[in-house]
Amino acid sequence: MLKREKEHINYVLLNDTNNAVMPFANLLKNIQKHVNLNAEEEAYLLSLFSEKAVDKKEMLLHEGQPCHYFYFVYKGALRSYCLDKQGKESTIMFALQNWWITDMFCFLNDKPAIMFIEALQDSVVLQIHKKSLDNLLLKYPKFEKWFRVLMQNAYTREQLRVIDNLTLSAEEKYDKFLAKYPLIVNEITQKQLASYLGITPEFLSVIRKNKL
Amino acid sequence: MLKREKEHINYVLLNDTNNAVMPFANLLKNIQKHVNLNAEEEAYLLSLFSEKAVDKKEMLLHEGQPCHYFYFVYKGALRSYCLDKQGKESTIMFALQNWWITDMFCFLNDKPAIMFIEALQDSVVLQIHKKSLDNLLLKYPKFEKWFRVLMQNAYTREQLRVIDNLTLSAEEKYDKFLAKYPLIVNEITQKQLASYLGITPEFLSVIRKNKL
Repeated sequence: MLKREKEHINYVLLNDTNNAVMPFANLLKNIQKHVNLNAEEEAYLLSLFSEKAVDKKEMLLHEGQPCHYFYFVYKGALRSYCLDKQGKESTIMFALQNWWITDMFCFLNDKPAIMFIEALQDSVVLQIHKKSLDNLLLKYPKFEKWFRVLMQNAYTREQLRVIDNLTLSAEEKYDKFLAKYPLIVNEITQKQLASYLGITPEFLSVIRKNKL
Repeated sequence: MLKREKEHINYVLLNDTNNAVMPFANLLKNIQKHVNLNAEEEAYLLSLFSEKAVDKKEMLLHEGQPCHYFYFVYKGALRSYCLDKQGKESTIMFALQNWWITDMFCFLNDKPAIMFIEALQDSVVLQIHKKSLDNLLLKYPKFEKWFRVLMQNAYTREQLRVIDNLTLSAEEKYDKFLAKYPLIVNEITQKQLASYLGITPEFLSVIRKNKL
């Protein structure tokens, strides 16, 4: 085991009640839902992640930049969005505590980002570089299962969203969003939610008023 | 090795130039893009799939039915779609030769199907049951990588579709579809394509006329 890995595992094991290492404990818990890890695998995994604080409104990723990182949200809330030719924002996804976020197409295919990722609150993420993720999957193929489950959950979520967009009214989409993501609603503006649902803020305002 | 597996591998090895086993050869080629398999693994994999012919307009899956199978398209073309409350069809995806298709959310979560899958032409698919897929991943974890890559490709495809729906005009979406799936266009009706793009057939007709 490398010195760096050893330091990491000691850090986690000796400090597991200490707030400073909670991000790494959360990350481990999240991944261990899918794979059982021994001490060496845990240490290697953790050695690949680094912590990053992002202030509210700060950008974690900017359209056109290289998209090298996959982010685990330890604290806070983030949002990814695109701009169309007229500069109108479209929200692609939100990510709260224990969610994962990146511009997945560009991350996997080593392309410049087509979206922005901004912090909606002061947030803390743990980031892993694409090369480190590739190395992890090569060195310990058991992590394939974790990433497979992440990807299949993300795929089915996006597919259900496509179905909702094609089959539901704006009001039904709004109701479904509230039921599915009750925690997010308090963290975002009306404009951000409207741009996720694909409607204007004015129309969202009408829907909300009709519900009072 | 089980008798059934042995028969399967002999069948493939002895008949590899015979048209009758081409579906299995195509399937192997498709999966071996992602994982290297030895003879035993190939045989076990193939023993889990069965061939099924579907006539044009026949349903492979019906909304409300159990969704137990994941389908590899050996020949032909398929389409999945949903109905909204008014009975209007929305096309979720198309699948041509060497593509995979199912109602993934319901397949993975053992729920009754929320979509239909119909054959657009006389088609041949190879199907694997959910329990067989689970057994395959447990018995040979190397298949995790294959399924992970399938899922990440499907996820990024759906995410790019969400982005296109939120940021592009109907005409731009049509142009992008033509560029991305030139082979599908000849196999589908104007109504089916319009319901994939989320526009009316009349509006699609206007877009097409403007391009002549």
